[in-house]
Amino acid sequence: MNVYLDYQSAKPVDPRVIEAMQPYFHEQFGNPSSLHMTGDQATRVLNQCRQKIADFIQAERDEIIFTSGATESNNQALIGLALRNREKGNHIIISEIEHISIHNIAKFLERNGFTVSKVPVDQYGQVNPDKLQQRITEKTILVSIGHANNEIGTIQPVREIGEICQQKNIVFHSDAVAAEGLIPLHVKRDHIDLMTLSSNDIYGPRGLGVLYKRKGVSLNPLIIGGGQENGLRSGSENMPTIVGMAKAVDIMQKQMPGEVEKLKKFRDRLIKGVLEKIPQSYLNGHQIKRLPNNAHFRFEGIEGEALLLSLKDKGIDVATGSACSSKTLEPSHTLISLGLLHEEAHGSLELTCGRFNQEEDIKTLLKELPGVVAKLRQLSPLYQQEDQS
Amino acid sequence: MNVYLDYQSAKPVDPRVIEAMQPYFHEQFGNPSSLHMTGDQATRVLNQCRQKIADFIQAERDEIIFTSGATESNNQALIGLALRNREKGNHIIISEIEHISIHNIAKFLERNGFTVSKVPVDQYGQVNPDKLQQRITEKTILVSIGHANNEIGTIQPVREIGEICQQKNIVFHSDAVAAEGLIPLHVKRDHIDLMTLSSNDIYGPRGLGVLYKRKGVSLNPLIIGGGQENGLRSGSENMPTIVGMAKAVDIMQKQMPGEVEKLKKFRDRLIKGVLEKIPQSYLNGHQIKRLPNNAHFRFEGIEGEALLLSLKDKGIDVATGSACSSKTLEPSHTLISLGLLHEEAHGSLELTCGRFNQEEDIKTLLKELPGVVAKLRQLSPLYQQEDQS
Repeated sequence: MNVYLDYQSAKPVDPRVIEAMQPYFHEQFGNPSSLHMTGDQATRVLNQCRQKIADFIQAERDEIIFTSGATESNNQALIGLALRNREKGNHIIISEIEHISIHNIAKFLERNGFTVSKVPVDQYGQVNPDKLQQRITEKTILVSIGHANNEIGTIQPVREIGEICQQKNIVFHSDAVAAEGLIPLHVKRDHIDLMTLSSNDIYGPRGLGVLYKRKGVSLNPLIIGGGQENGLRSGSENMPTIVGMAKAVDIMQKQMPGEVEKLKKFRDRLIKGVLEKIPQSYLNGHQIKRLPNNAHFRFEGIEGEALLLSLKDKGIDVATGSACSSKTLEPSHTLISLGLLHEEAHGSLELTCGRFNQEEDIKTLLKELPGVVAKLRQLSPLYQQEDQS
Repeated sequence: MNVYLDYQSAKPVDPRVIEAMQPYFHEQFGNPSSLHMTGDQATRVLNQCRQKIADFIQAERDEIIFTSGATESNNQALIGLALRNREKGNHIIISEIEHISIHNIAKFLERNGFTVSKVPVDQYGQVNPDKLQQRITEKTILVSIGHANNEIGTIQPVREIGEICQQKNIVFHSDAVAAEGLIPLHVKRDHIDLMTLSSNDIYGPRGLGVLYKRKGVSLNPLIIGGGQENGLRSGSENMPTIVGMAKAVDIMQKQMPGEVEKLKKFRDRLIKGVLEKIPQSYLNGHQIKRLPNNAHFRFEGIEGEALLLSLKDKGIDVATGSACSSKTLEPSHTLISLGLLHEEAHGSLELTCGRFNQEEDIKTLLKELPGVVAKLRQLSPLYQQEDQS
């Protein structure tokens, strides 16, 4: 069994969730649009699950739109809002360190007559609300800034951003995928109008996302058809995954505080251990405003890719850059935005812990990593240790 | 246990499919975009499943795009093709009896500068290829005609339509959801350029669809992000459902001939039994060019909705109109297109059989239906039996 420290890219579904889903594949398989008994059962379950998920983020039941995942929710939020509100304005603001999907959607909107401003972040990855405020114009219709960053784990001042948007009457979208299950989410308190959630990121099944849409916000639908989800997302509802996500929420509501404590302990051991044991290693991201499961480093003189492959040989799964762009070999846009040079960004290692990690996993990583780094540095023409000279 | 005769609106997942999916929720949960071991496993499985599904329709592996379902596949096909090929022409042809999603997507395209022609069908629901040919103009870029109709079960002359489109160099999309698993699909032989499939319609899990895209056809992506599915459909791949659909294909390849024979027997008993036992009952759709699992009737003097609810009281699940529009209470656009009057269309009953039906289900329906129809007619001001006068 290998050691898995890449929870940001994929999470195993919780066994209790898998069990809860089972009856909805074969026995209770109805389509909620059907008027017969099997359809009625599905409708009742759909309503209950929607309520459960709404409660998780302090929303109302009819503010929850089910989608096929976080990427679709981000597309629906940004494209749906922009195309619907074009006559109000054509300016959108995102941060420099948004998820790749937000960046690529922004490019699409730029090709379609919108202008996009990108707020920079400080060296720890935080958006400064004043800098956001400076970029708001009469034409601004949408601000999209994630709750926390999926790579370096920096948590944004979401409530302050929400207050600014509310004052200016601008819709505020937040991709909360990296944060869900790790920090409490509260759409009303934080003045969030649109929020993206993913089922898998709280140990639910893949293939289900949520877009929270505050009552009163208008969107164009992205996927057109039979008119499900109040006309905003057509296609028969994916009942087993909806039941699964509701169960995942239920589990999270009960055990999140204890789980977060455990993750923080692991994270802090990783950070302390790596920085102590490995010379010329640095922590990326914020020291305090940081997701409880994220430890992100850079090492002088080595390539993250080589590091990943060396650890793979030792049965340890890690990431360098986000999963979505991992095969492009481009340096992470997030790390570049922190002010790192390309070679610094390339030497990064992302460790994300999760529900099924054991202390042993942390020990194994801390035992293997220093040797791997030392060996790679020996082979590296880039690296010259000071004491070598 | 109730009798389920509404397989067109939802299908129970085959227990063998459910079993095949299990390891991919918790044990082999990797993201194919990850470069580590867990990610590599996922990539291997993804390639195998894609090949399996390609073989099912005689396509190549890299012609298979995974989506979240048939509705998304239809959106991706029509909107993606239209927006990409705008400068070649702005004319699209569909049939009058396409699935509601195709009709609503066509309306969206009309609002965005495209013109849409709708080929009429004959009284049995068949498109006449000559009438299609007459509607083709210099501006026609796309023809979208379903393989078979999801309500009345009429099978279209797909190959003839494909040949016409090929000759005229027009892209041919076919929604094959109602046909899959019931008639053989062969994209090359039938000259199909784009084809929509759904996992659930072959007893796979919900939440997964396929868009077959012939090499050389260009589409704009609908869902933008990390660039999965060759940039055409972003979002982490939904591995358990992909494994499930591949297993569903495997089962279908082995047992389709026998299953189709069984369904035909059930269908023919339903048709014979209903037409014999119930006066003033009529079969909708084609007698021969008909899906092997579809029996669709109309009864003079009664409402389909009342029929559905009366059968529901007796524990029998049926449909009247398609599942997607069943809650709107509008008469089915398909039945109206056959030339039926509104009151005739309203008096319809759709019975669709499937893999888990038993002979007993057919007997129960034939035992209960005549009494239910007679009782409703007694209560109906619309109905006057000839022998009452």
